[in-house]
Amino acid sequence: MALPKRAIIHELGPREGMQIEKNPVSTEAKIRLVDLLSDCVFPEIEVTSFVSPKWVPQMADAEQVVTGFKPRPGTAYTAIYLNAQGIARALATGKLHMEGVLSVTASEAFSKKNTNRTIEETFIETEKRIAVLKDQKVLTDQISVMAAFGCNYEGDIAPDHVVRLIDRLMTMAAEHDLKISLIQLADTMGWGTPSGIQRLVGMVQDRWPDITINLHLHDTRGLGLLNAYTALQMGIYDFDSAVGGLGGCPYAGFTGAAGNIVTEDLVHLCHEAGIETGVDLDRLLEVAREAEDIVGHPLPGKVMRGGSLPRYRAQPTA
Amino acid sequence: MALPKRAIIHELGPREGMQIEKNPVSTEAKIRLVDLLSDCVFPEIEVTSFVSPKWVPQMADAEQVVTGFKPRPGTAYTAIYLNAQGIARALATGKLHMEGVLSVTASEAFSKKNTNRTIEETFIETEKRIAVLKDQKVLTDQISVMAAFGCNYEGDIAPDHVVRLIDRLMTMAAEHDLKISLIQLADTMGWGTPSGIQRLVGMVQDRWPDITINLHLHDTRGLGLLNAYTALQMGIYDFDSAVGGLGGCPYAGFTGAAGNIVTEDLVHLCHEAGIETGVDLDRLLEVAREAEDIVGHPLPGKVMRGGSLPRYRAQPTA
Repeated sequence: MALPKRAIIHELGPREGMQIEKNPVSTEAKIRLVDLLSDCVFPEIEVTSFVSPKWVPQMADAEQVVTGFKPRPGTAYTAIYLNAQGIARALATGKLHMEGVLSVTASEAFSKKNTNRTIEETFIETEKRIAVLKDQKVLTDQISVMAAFGCNYEGDIAPDHVVRLIDRLMTMAAEHDLKISLIQLADTMGWGTPSGIQRLVGMVQDRWPDITINLHLHDTRGLGLLNAYTALQMGIYDFDSAVGGLGGCPYAGFTGAAGNIVTEDLVHLCHEAGIETGVDLDRLLEVAREAEDIVGHPLPGKVMRGGSLPRYRAQPTA
Repeated sequence: MALPKRAIIHELGPREGMQIEKNPVSTEAKIRLVDLLSDCVFPEIEVTSFVSPKWVPQMADAEQVVTGFKPRPGTAYTAIYLNAQGIARALATGKLHMEGVLSVTASEAFSKKNTNRTIEETFIETEKRIAVLKDQKVLTDQISVMAAFGCNYEGDIAPDHVVRLIDRLMTMAAEHDLKISLIQLADTMGWGTPSGIQRLVGMVQDRWPDITINLHLHDTRGLGLLNAYTALQMGIYDFDSAVGGLGGCPYAGFTGAAGNIVTEDLVHLCHEAGIETGVDLDRLLEVAREAEDIVGHPLPGKVMRGGSLPRYRAQPTA
């Protein structure tokens, strides 16, 4: 299949990144990172997480971050919210693009560990979530499956199990007159491989040919860009990523494991493959270097160190 | 095309790695690294470089390193030598598998910069090199093209230019009754992309269908494993790599740029794709962590931090 002409890249750095940093990042620096990213012309920037400061103290300043950044027309600023309180907090800012997402974790063990609910309990909770989202007038049009390719707590995840979970969420959505336009497959712990991507993405494409598939890929085992390119070759054009590779994987067995795929490396790959992203790569490479200053340690991004091919084409080293 | 059943992986860490380290690594530590890698069951380990200590002081102890390591039966220990003196030094150790390689750099600018010779001068020099290799009874059966995919000093390199260079070396080899069995395409500065790999590798395959193609890939822009997998899909099964990603690219515009692709990440990918390598991945992951201790700084390898999938399958996190 031909590569898509255009890819949509969702920048998650401010949210994914800040959540895991050990040293506190100041509210001011978080706002600065969002503003810097706004210059790079993303369709979406995920700004923060409205979760309990008891569980994620790094996100206690969510309201201040949202109040502080200067929105760029054309970019949708979004956030994460896990319950009614979070939705209310996000809505109250009046500044965010609200997205209703029905999500489930494909691994029973990780579901319990991460959300304190079994998969069955998640479906019961989802009924309540739909009611809350409706009540708050948030359009619910997305489905997300976490740990869709495998799990450090459970091993490989069978693709037909994932398809069944999506099917149940789709049925539930239809019963509530919700029109789902996007299915996210999240490789939360970096279990994706080219054949794994081909299998699951292929099954979801066959079953729901009219729905956009988003891939949320982690680079835990160095296969992130290979997996993204495998999906691009299947016509997938919607990806999450984080500038510089901000984030990291809290579920890996060793500290320092890679998290989300690196936005500027993905953008660079897309552009080299003739796929437009609309993202300003030169500016983004500067922002990636500034992101390292903001968190105070090196990030795994490669192109920010190696230099982009367009840069060298325009100006070869003397 | 089906993936190959088996890949041959040449470990270059001790040579590529030590050459670029700023802080001196002791001779003892270099020997230890070779011995550790011997446990991992590679078909080849490139041990050191016999070059003038005036130019590469890190390699001044080449003889001592070769004398010191304990060879494992079944592994070929090799080295780099650029001239008659280097060949004589390597031969004198009596311990190395000697390989005669005819090499040329595809970029005129980089050829001058790196070898102080134009491409034409390289061909003249190659005649002399063939005579020296014959004289020393070293079997010459390899051709190598550096900067075959692009160059920071010159930009993109046309694939038909590379094919013409190989053709000239093949003709020269034939005139001297040398039978070439391997053509190496080196992406010295990480300019390879999937389409670039497909184009050049495809042209070389078409022109010389019976000769093994080796890819020497750098991960300067994060595309190393994607490029390797693109080649595997074309039936290529011969790769160079460095444990932990030892090395780094001295020609990139920024310090800290990635060098060779990471051996254990490549081995992990191959095994996940059902391609045998014969390499002991578990042991190699331990060695990668020890390699970080030896050089005294983090290396870019991902699987050593994220944990291998076989490890998690056998023993999920509790």
